[in-house]
Amino acid sequence: MVATLNPVNHCHQLLSAANHNHACRLVITASFNEVAINDGDKRSNKSTRLAKSISNLLNLYIEKPSLKNFLHRNDWNVVAQAEAKLELPTMSPKEDISSIWRDIHGCSDWENLLDPLHPFVRRELIKYGEFSQATYDAFDFDSFSEYCGSCLFNRRKFFEKLGLTKHGYDVRKYIYAMSQFEIPRWLEKSYVTDTWSKDSNWMGYIAVSDDLESKRIGRRDIVVAWRGTVLPSEWYEDMQRDLEPLGHGEAKVERGFLSIYKSKRMSTRYNKTSASEQVMEEIKRLTKFYKSTGEQVSLTITGHSLGGALALLNAYDAAMTFPTLPISVISFGAPRVGNIAFRDELHHRGVKALRITIKQDLVPRMPELKLDARASPFLKRGSNFIGVHHPETYLHLVDGFVSSNSSFRSDAKRDLALVNKYCDMLVNELRIPAYWYQLSNKGLVSNEFGRWIRPKRENEDVPSPIEEEENYDL
Amino acid sequence: MVATLNPVNHCHQLLSAANHNHACRLVITASFNEVAINDGDKRSNKSTRLAKSISNLLNLYIEKPSLKNFLHRNDWNVVAQAEAKLELPTMSPKEDISSIWRDIHGCSDWENLLDPLHPFVRRELIKYGEFSQATYDAFDFDSFSEYCGSCLFNRRKFFEKLGLTKHGYDVRKYIYAMSQFEIPRWLEKSYVTDTWSKDSNWMGYIAVSDDLESKRIGRRDIVVAWRGTVLPSEWYEDMQRDLEPLGHGEAKVERGFLSIYKSKRMSTRYNKTSASEQVMEEIKRLTKFYKSTGEQVSLTITGHSLGGALALLNAYDAAMTFPTLPISVISFGAPRVGNIAFRDELHHRGVKALRITIKQDLVPRMPELKLDARASPFLKRGSNFIGVHHPETYLHLVDGFVSSNSSFRSDAKRDLALVNKYCDMLVNELRIPAYWYQLSNKGLVSNEFGRWIRPKRENEDVPSPIEEEENYDL
Repeated sequence: MVATLNPVNHCHQLLSAANHNHACRLVITASFNEVAINDGDKRSNKSTRLAKSISNLLNLYIEKPSLKNFLHRNDWNVVAQAEAKLELPTMSPKEDISSIWRDIHGCSDWENLLDPLHPFVRRELIKYGEFSQATYDAFDFDSFSEYCGSCLFNRRKFFEKLGLTKHGYDVRKYIYAMSQFEIPRWLEKSYVTDTWSKDSNWMGYIAVSDDLESKRIGRRDIVVAWRGTVLPSEWYEDMQRDLEPLGHGEAKVERGFLSIYKSKRMSTRYNKTSASEQVMEEIKRLTKFYKSTGEQVSLTITGHSLGGALALLNAYDAAMTFPTLPISVISFGAPRVGNIAFRDELHHRGVKALRITIKQDLVPRMPELKLDARASPFLKRGSNFIGVHHPETYLHLVDGFVSSNSSFRSDAKRDLALVNKYCDMLVNELRIPAYWYQLSNKGLVSNEFGRWIRPKRENEDVPSPIEEEENYDL
Repeated sequence: MVATLNPVNHCHQLLSAANHNHACRLVITASFNEVAINDGDKRSNKSTRLAKSISNLLNLYIEKPSLKNFLHRNDWNVVAQAEAKLELPTMSPKEDISSIWRDIHGCSDWENLLDPLHPFVRRELIKYGEFSQATYDAFDFDSFSEYCGSCLFNRRKFFEKLGLTKHGYDVRKYIYAMSQFEIPRWLEKSYVTDTWSKDSNWMGYIAVSDDLESKRIGRRDIVVAWRGTVLPSEWYEDMQRDLEPLGHGEAKVERGFLSIYKSKRMSTRYNKTSASEQVMEEIKRLTKFYKSTGEQVSLTITGHSLGGALALLNAYDAAMTFPTLPISVISFGAPRVGNIAFRDELHHRGVKALRITIKQDLVPRMPELKLDARASPFLKRGSNFIGVHHPETYLHLVDGFVSSNSSFRSDAKRDLALVNKYCDMLVNELRIPAYWYQLSNKGLVSNEFGRWIRPKRENEDVPSPIEEEENYDL
């Protein structure tokens, strides 16, 4: 398990409104303008949110919860519950779902499977959720690294490094994206002049279920996982200012998302083809191969936040090209992507989209499986609009969701500590540090003279378009 | 080398003006009030400082330096210099100073040894500086730990764990302190109800030079290292509101410092005796023993910030009890401790005090060896009033100081990366992350089920008054 420095990024993205050096002052000014110029509910509401967001940042490694609150809290049974889990595996044993995979994949729009949540569905949702979580965990956010914006690991060791081999999938291709427009706070750039790529970021990957997992789930499952960003809702409002037509119908989608999905430039190292083309070409290759072997094939596209938006664009593309392929989208905290016509077209083309949202999360707009952060006894009360948007918070709530009118699942097995990887959501009684997912000494190591230096990346983990284009046997 | 979470503390202390949950809003309001109600230079000056302090906190893991500034900077020779050092030892070979140790120890007030700075003096200053730095590096700041406020390591392994065996000293005793007054933001407390100690904090240690080092430095050197705190200058102004008489003369010292130095209570585990009594008893034991073996003995008391203040109180005590013992104080960024009469008494009793200060540091008041942060080509320009108070910043500038009218020492050997351990002072070109001194995953480890848990402390590192009282052979 390798920790990346997501917290840096998470907050960088939140803060880096403009010149990073003044980010802090900017945000503060903002929050005070709110107080100054607005009035009515909106004002308090929004300024609270901004204050919260600052507080959140400061909390990053600073805030100590009030000693009083801490010692006087009385739900020690929460601690007992948590301790009882410590000696348990983090998942129930796998079930064979080969006979009912189409329902779990959404062929009947998950009717009667969501509320109460069917345990088989829960397990699959968490699997795909962990695939999209992996796009954060493996991303190089370090602006001092010449590989900033790339994936930390070689494709072939991706799941191994992230402790996800348990799901029985293999990564087949990495996805890179750029944008023809300046999209503020989207592209992660290195401060080093000579870098692996100036224009592109690693945006996710395509994986395929191995023989054993394919047997269990009743088909060869192609997964596309799109990386997102943890950004304040304001960012999404910016992204969504202009709609652009898609295809020949009435369908329109947000210009910002489409630009990331479609942009390419010959002069770049990684986007001579667009993210869209990279993904579609690989899906074509894979479906062609597996159909030739007579296997059933499904496409499942997943992503959190921005990643969820790209997943829908990807699904639209795929549905056009592969009319008979069962396609579903499992998105977590995804924003609105297009107009009603876009949604209808997706529907007509048979794309099944399950959006998982948290009531308190400000980003999503068209919720389908509604989670409630207050349902979990392990989460802090009070609004933390960054924390409730975090993917691990989603996975925790999916893990504990039984039905909209019943309490948190008592035998939920997922490791609670994961919730605090990049945020401060767990009650203090659990004594899990906030934002704990970090490298020792930010990756610096001591050389033979006792000097602290930045280690070179393993050769196999250095991004290389050529190496990645290498063919492999299916 | 074990990283502790000082950054947390460093900022916690800075921020925790009152209820930690509102720390952020408090600070911000403050800074904006400044802008609103003050005017004239003072206003901009102070509000800048506060803004800086916030920005500093945000920077903790968030700020990305402006790409423009970074790429357009032109002193790449700074990088070249830094790279040239990477393959060098971090210190020059040790010299035998046995014949001149009294001068280096300050017997003639370091006359003609400071400007230009004598290389032998520089090496000794850095040795004592690293002893006081160690009091931060070994301190448990984790409020979720039941050992918060203690030393992380067993006394016998202290220097080994911190990579300081090279200096040839052995730790003989730990020092604990409490305060009879509520001194805001001084005592580190655990949130866990049942802890190692509710009233006391580990405040430093007493060490003695081993035979080899004693031979090199011409005497058996007893070192007392006092832990400090990295707090904004305002805090010291609070501490210094009331003077209290000391001894029978005119001498008066700050009530806050004296309280930490002198407080005790029978009901406590670690302060049945005061820090003062603990230290004095051990010094008595050690001097008695080494004098009995006919060795020359010296006492060197060191500390940074608050630790420098306690060092002076300790020196005053020691001078009363051991009139013939050569006593010197090497303090880094220490605040004012007492009135003129106190200083004169110290002088009359032959205590040699060398205060090392950085021009830009707002805490100290009676500078003697004046360093200038602008003298180092490796440090960022612009005011960073927290950064310039950090002990590692002091050690870097001592390492590079030649004389007040010459530039930074080109063959300075100390590892530059250390400067950014707890702050953001190095120019970005060096690509050393800010605040990099941190534990992997904040010390959480994955158990056999893949759950992230807080490991138990090694038995030998669990604080125990009994164990620590154990006698040992001198």
